[in-house]
Amino acid sequence: MSPVTQLTARGPYIDGMQYGNWSEKIFRQMRAGGVDAVHVTIAYHETFREMVANIEAWNRMFQRFSHLIFHGKWASDIALARQTGRTAIFFGFQNPSPIEDDIGLVEIVHTLGARFMQLTYNNQSLLATGCYEKEDTGLTRMGREVVREMNRVGLVVDMSHSSDRSTLEAIEHSDRPIAITHANPSFWHPALRNKSNDVLKALGQSAGMFGFSLYPHHLKDKSACTLQSFCEMVARTADLVGIDHLGLGSDLCQDQPNSVVEWMRVGRWTKEVDYGEGSAAQPGFPEQPDWFRDNRDFENIESGLRAVGFCAADISAVMGGNWLKFFESSFVPDDGRETAKDRPTEVAI
Amino acid sequence: MSPVTQLTARGPYIDGMQYGNWSEKIFRQMRAGGVDAVHVTIAYHETFREMVANIEAWNRMFQRFSHLIFHGKWASDIALARQTGRTAIFFGFQNPSPIEDDIGLVEIVHTLGARFMQLTYNNQSLLATGCYEKEDTGLTRMGREVVREMNRVGLVVDMSHSSDRSTLEAIEHSDRPIAITHANPSFWHPALRNKSNDVLKALGQSAGMFGFSLYPHHLKDKSACTLQSFCEMVARTADLVGIDHLGLGSDLCQDQPNSVVEWMRVGRWTKEVDYGEGSAAQPGFPEQPDWFRDNRDFENIESGLRAVGFCAADISAVMGGNWLKFFESSFVPDDGRETAKDRPTEVAI
Repeated sequence: MSPVTQLTARGPYIDGMQYGNWSEKIFRQMRAGGVDAVHVTIAYHETFREMVANIEAWNRMFQRFSHLIFHGKWASDIALARQTGRTAIFFGFQNPSPIEDDIGLVEIVHTLGARFMQLTYNNQSLLATGCYEKEDTGLTRMGREVVREMNRVGLVVDMSHSSDRSTLEAIEHSDRPIAITHANPSFWHPALRNKSNDVLKALGQSAGMFGFSLYPHHLKDKSACTLQSFCEMVARTADLVGIDHLGLGSDLCQDQPNSVVEWMRVGRWTKEVDYGEGSAAQPGFPEQPDWFRDNRDFENIESGLRAVGFCAADISAVMGGNWLKFFESSFVPDDGRETAKDRPTEVAI
Repeated sequence: MSPVTQLTARGPYIDGMQYGNWSEKIFRQMRAGGVDAVHVTIAYHETFREMVANIEAWNRMFQRFSHLIFHGKWASDIALARQTGRTAIFFGFQNPSPIEDDIGLVEIVHTLGARFMQLTYNNQSLLATGCYEKEDTGLTRMGREVVREMNRVGLVVDMSHSSDRSTLEAIEHSDRPIAITHANPSFWHPALRNKSNDVLKALGQSAGMFGFSLYPHHLKDKSACTLQSFCEMVARTADLVGIDHLGLGSDLCQDQPNSVVEWMRVGRWTKEVDYGEGSAAQPGFPEQPDWFRDNRDFENIESGLRAVGFCAADISAVMGGNWLKFFESSFVPDDGRETAKDRPTEVAI
């Protein structure tokens, strides 16, 4: 088998979340690593207009690096990515700030290509409660309306940075399965950002998706976490959640200066320093484990899963097959005919 | 032949510009008049964010009146409109204010569905000179860049409210044919908004489109203009421009309060009153001629064209066939593959 045939024969590699300091170098590493699709963050605390400026910057990259990447909008773009040897880039927000206080912007941002939106980023938002708040009051009045509208237009509810009650209420209230694109189980590493067994079970039972994070603050033993420990954790999570609902969401923040992690944590909501998952002693981005430094290392995870006993079908599901199925049922609007013309002609994978 | 068969047998009715006070009543009149597609104005002086709010309002109408109208984005939506007995609504701006000073917004507004943008509205803009300015300096530096970008993404250059030199330079500089969506020839009625023979000839020679206005200030004898005079003017214009480049652009501003014509003329650019084409004696919207009061009267124009001697094929071309061909070559982006997936599957008309 030629290398190309081998690549096509395996299932897709899909990463459920990254936020790199985007460059030709990173896009070439995506290609070297055989990464077919990545959900990238295009907003942390941005207003609508600021988020649009970020899309404009992406549009310039799509023009300049059209041989490496393109704007992914539909599940069938995974097939297009594989056929053309490129990586499909799917947009998402870590925070609902881009829709401001305006429910009409939910449809607008979907039209612009957004496919994931977190209801909260650590703090209380207009929609729900973040995982760093002391009180979790669940979905707000606007939150319930916005979840319904997200369901209608095909924008995935992402609860990665939300607290437990809000997450459980989102799962309950949403007509479509939701996602936790990047986190780990707290049974393995009890970080505030990791998820309780109750949340994990409710997510799996509702056909939601859970993306495993490779961000050191979410890993047992942080930067020193071993591949074996990570893969054994995946196996335990599969027992709890079901193998069909698991994928990767690396949270890879490659080549970012530390000023960016400050922006992520502090935004414009405080004049003080907030270290988030870091500390005064380690305020910056932590070092990646040596078995997952960048987009070229997805094969290491595949090998690690094999080494702890996963079968080929389950490995393929976790590496991207499950995300692909989730994309297929999540992005197309509910209202049928009017928007059908914006959909691609379906392409067999 | 049943009425439905008759309707399908004739060519499409397409109106190159309207700005009504939109309501179920108007949409029902569009259906009663057999109007298959309308280019509607969604911005006069709005910023980007304000224009987005106008799209949000349209999205609510598309949901509420989905049995009457839908958002038209591609030429093939004309076929969809006819198959489903609805009117396709295409978006356009009378002024480049929604792209602010940001060329990246050209692609963004196309993604949001905008298909026409005037480079100027009466006044000097960042891009070109309006027809009410004393000095016409032609396309600006940014104007030349924006025209190139509009060509790339598939946003039509509309010079309805521009002055002669700017219009001739836009025709010359644009790689794609441009449009004057709503105006009349000044040989028939010498209003500032009407177009010189030089402009009309250059437009036709470059395969551009000219939409005849039914707005009384653009008509000979204004509200008292006769259908015969209008149709004879169409025939004279066909001799000058070529029948293939003519359509309708009614400029119908139905049910609007006079505060709206003030907004159109004055925006936020002056604290004084500017009467535009009106006067202190007649500051409001003028009365429509009795043979074109609303969307139910397109058949009158068809009859009028027949009465002055147009053949069936030429009538069909002017009533919508020429706009349809223009839409087919104007809205699809130049950059091929990446955006091909946003295009509809082509439907035979």
